[in-house]
Amino acid sequence: MPAIEHILIQKISAGEITEANDQVAVEEPLEIQLAYSTATGYMQKNIAVTMRTPGNDEELAAGFLFTEGIIKDKKSIKEIKQRGDNRVLVSLQEDIQPVLTNLARNFYITSSCGICGKASIDAVRTNSFYQNEKDNILIRSSVLQHLQDDLKKQQLVFVHTGGIHASALFGFGGNFIMLREDVGRHNALDKVIGAALIGEGLPLNNCILFLSGRASFELVQKAAMAGIKIIAAVGAPSSLAIEMAKEAGITLIGFLRDDRFNIYTGNKRITL
Amino acid sequence: MPAIEHILIQKISAGEITEANDQVAVEEPLEIQLAYSTATGYMQKNIAVTMRTPGNDEELAAGFLFTEGIIKDKKSIKEIKQRGDNRVLVSLQEDIQPVLTNLARNFYITSSCGICGKASIDAVRTNSFYQNEKDNILIRSSVLQHLQDDLKKQQLVFVHTGGIHASALFGFGGNFIMLREDVGRHNALDKVIGAALIGEGLPLNNCILFLSGRASFELVQKAAMAGIKIIAAVGAPSSLAIEMAKEAGITLIGFLRDDRFNIYTGNKRITL
Repeated sequence: MPAIEHILIQKISAGEITEANDQVAVEEPLEIQLAYSTATGYMQKNIAVTMRTPGNDEELAAGFLFTEGIIKDKKSIKEIKQRGDNRVLVSLQEDIQPVLTNLARNFYITSSCGICGKASIDAVRTNSFYQNEKDNILIRSSVLQHLQDDLKKQQLVFVHTGGIHASALFGFGGNFIMLREDVGRHNALDKVIGAALIGEGLPLNNCILFLSGRASFELVQKAAMAGIKIIAAVGAPSSLAIEMAKEAGITLIGFLRDDRFNIYTGNKRITL
Repeated sequence: MPAIEHILIQKISAGEITEANDQVAVEEPLEIQLAYSTATGYMQKNIAVTMRTPGNDEELAAGFLFTEGIIKDKKSIKEIKQRGDNRVLVSLQEDIQPVLTNLARNFYITSSCGICGKASIDAVRTNSFYQNEKDNILIRSSVLQHLQDDLKKQQLVFVHTGGIHASALFGFGGNFIMLREDVGRHNALDKVIGAALIGEGLPLNNCILFLSGRASFELVQKAAMAGIKIIAAVGAPSSLAIEMAKEAGITLIGFLRDDRFNIYTGNKRITL
């Protein structure tokens, strides 16, 4: 299934209307199915539907299961199978129990101390597999300032449609590692983390995570689950994204431009 | 609870690092609770948690229940009550049954024809209260081109933080009606539609809906539920957003700038 669709539109410009061919990012639902052992046998369950741009669906499914705390490693997975255009079935090993109580919608509600940002962060802390260990990461500010140029060369669907989010990984020296795109920003990140999980690349504590848009709580939470220590976002962070980053020991950068950026947390890892 | 938080950050610019005070958009979970009659008495249930910017929480809860097809009008609601900072309880009238099978995560899965964009659109069609009736709406292109200027005067949190989405309503002549902001684009729209529901202003078939970002399937779906006929988005639409707009008889405009825009569906309603 393609990631781009060609359509006919009307363009209005300087008081004139013209017909034109345009390209838009494809958005389609992906159903994530999970098969696993229960007391009554090996069963299958539809656990989530996400509106996503087709492509890297297996990575998306694997990444979703991992960042939501439902599985904890690649070894848990027996097989990932695409079933038609819009379904992926992830089968777990017979001795693995998925943690379905962690499914996103329940993530906060089950928190005993009530519903607030603090409770959300506590819920993540309980579920994260990578603890906050000491490190001596040091990144030059010039490396961060060049990420965006590099990304522009890679972000193909965005170039064509202007309507998509990107998540990318770079090494600490600024070397490009991986890019994933999606109409949903959380999907783009799940694809990156899923690719790392499948490729035995977790934790991602040796990478810079680049986000093409804003940094929300959900994105920082998923990054924390993957052990990411540096996040550089083109857009603004939210209050809870900053709190989550602080709690997880993540350096959080926002408003990244060619010539400037803001450091919200973890400034000790950035040098001029 | 404030919508903006003040924090201390480090700014890197032209090779220099300075400390600065900054303002970020607040993101906190809102738990939506529903109380309603069942065979065993009047009961209460937590039905959703959404990460939102505090403010207009009652509108957000009402809008969410309506756009997700759980309630069908204002009359269904007995009372809406804020309970602390991050909880809203919506109590329904004793004779009203909420349609909980419509809860977002089930919306697509229950569709019998399988999981694809078409199924998603079918599910919305079944649940929409406002059918696609004939109209003779005609909007001047100059009206659309001026919306953004007007919005800039109103969009207060965005001005301060750069990190928030806006949904706004304008009359067909370009007169400003209402603006709501949120870190989540679906929340900003639910707040607008919830305000209209509470104020007995539905259907919104006499308004232009302005979106500060991209137009996704979910946003067009919510607009269709509220009977909106004109959507003007600053960003790009997705493929499924366009299909949904076509199906619901909505005029969908994207890439709206001062001097130009694209018409994706329903161009007969736009005149130069």
